[in-house]
Parts: sequence; structure tokens; C-alpha cells
Amino acid sequence: MRILGVDPGLATVGLGLVERESARSVRAIEWLTIETDAGMAPAERLRIIADDLEEYIKETSPDLAVVEKLFFSVNVKTALDVAQARGVILSVIARHGIPCLEPTPPELKSCITGDGNADKAQIQRMLMGMFNLKEPPSPDDAADALALAAFGAFQGRVTLLA
Amino acid sequence: MRILGVDPGLATVGLGLVERESARSVRAIEWLTIETDAGMAPAERLRIIADDLEEYIKETSPDLAVVEKLFFSVNVKTALDVAQARGVILSVIARHGIPCLEPTPPELKSCITGDGNADKAQIQRMLMGMFNLKEPPSPDDAADALALAAFGAFQGRVTLLA
Repeated sequence: MRILGVDPGLATVGLGLVERESARSVRAIEWLTIETDAGMAPAERLRIIADDLEEYIKETSPDLAVVEKLFFSVNVKTALDVAQARGVILSVIARHGIPCLEPTPPELKSCITGDGNADKAQIQRMLMGMFNLKEPPSPDDAADALALAAFGAFQGRVTLLA
Repeated sequence: MRILGVDPGLATVGLGLVERESARSVRAIEWLTIETDAGMAPAERLRIIADDLEEYIKETSPDLAVVEKLFFSVNVKTALDVAQARGVILSVIARHGIPCLEPTPPELKSCITGDGNADKAQIQRMLMGMFNLKEPPSPDDAADALALAAFGAFQGRVTLLA
């Protein structure tokens, strides 16, 4: 079972892909980003996100997607930009008929570290242990996406055993 | 020249289509809505918006699109939902290579009525006069989309004469 985590953004979309081979074996396949140029029109940047994500989904055929829920942000302009990108991402995932989990940031942190208020460094350490990585996954958006994919792998277990 | 106005929303997307035959002749072709069911998952609702808009664009081949810019809303949840739908709409428009104008609500109101603080009734009256309508266009989201399309027709004139 292959799980795709997506960390939404307008400038950078994080993608993390894991393979869940058994209840005890979850393997990180890759983590990467889709980047869009701040000099382009927003609509064009959203189109690039749609097209690149579409292509990535076709290449990797994930069975489950995980996209973080948006929390209220102090910066409204940024929140709206992220929401626009997130809408594009959700619609592309739904178009491919892929079920999608939408954890809140505390749900994600709690699942990965056991602490809903965990900081970035704690999550990085857990990911390194979980996936036997020699270095912390980077950049940040790709690491966040990998954490989301890991969340999906653990949630998936519950569903699959039920 | 055919101009498509789109009023973004998650439950209802307004669509308004006008034909600009000359600098003095702008005709309303139709105004309608895409509706999505509140009982469905958000990702599925966004997919429906993407697919229905895609189909409508293929059927009508607009030369220009106009999508209202988002303003900060008191209701953050609603603003994020609208932003997600708006992102989907912008990406579909960009995928078809259609240029897109993004007026703010005051810019739209000012263009249609001459008053950036115009209320709904004033805009309705101007649309009725502009397009020789016997009744105010409805529902509201479709009327807003028709106003956006009219905005595009007037802006287009400036560009075309330049």
C-alpha cells in the first residue's frame, strides 16, 4: 500500500511517499517538492501545481493521500494563498479516486511523536528513526509531507485490520 | 469575444457568460450555477467544481475569464472554503490558457455602477438595464458572475482599443 503525503503551499508543495509493506514495515520511498515561481501569475502557479501533482500521481499510483487541514493563520493573505493551492491539490486527488485523510496539525504531531505540540526538531528525529535516515529529511515542506504520509501509514493500519 | 465571469464558492459557483459584439454591444448569453452537496467530502465537491467548470469552458470557449479577488472575511472557515474553490477555478482557467482578470469587490462595483460601495440592488438594476432583462438576474451567485463578466467586457474594450 503506497501513501502520498502532501503539504500544501503556493510557492512550495511538499510531497512525501511511503510504502507500507506490513503493519510493522513502513518504508520511505522519496520526498520532494513542487516549486512555483513568485514572478508568475497566481492562476499559472496553481495550474503548475495541478499538472505536476497529476503527473506525480500517475507515476506513483498512491492508494491513499494525506493532506494537512488548514488552521487559522495570523497572515490572512498567506492563508488564502495556501487554501487556494490546497483546493487544487484536493481536487486532483479526488479526480484520481484516491481516498484522502485530512489531519489537523496537532493530530499529525501527536501521531508521529505522541505529543500534539511537538516542534519541528522532534518530528525530524522521529522520522529519522522510523525510516532509518542518516540525515533529517529536507527541505521542511518535503519533511512535513513525509510526516503526513507516515500518519497515513499508521491510520491505514487501523482501517486495514478492522 | 466571449467573457466568462465566475463567482467562487464551495456550495455554489456562479457562472455568467456575455458576448461582446462591439464596443457598444455587450449581450448576456446566460447565467447559472454549479452546486455541490454539503453532505459530500470537500475534496469530492472541489472535484465536481473542477470537472463541471472544465466541461462548461469546453462547451462555451470563452476568450477571457473574470474571477473576483477574495477579501478578508469575518468567517475564516468560509473564507478558506471559498479560497480552496477559487484555487480550483483559477487552475482550470489557466489550464485552458484563458487570460483571467481578478477585480476586487470595490473595483467590480465601481465598474458596474460607478460606486465602489454599491449594494446588491444597485448592481441588479444596472445589469437589468445593461442587458435589457425583464427581471433581476438570479440566483445571487449567478448575478454576481454576470456582473463579473460585464466587468470583463468593459475592461476588454480598453485593451482592444489600445
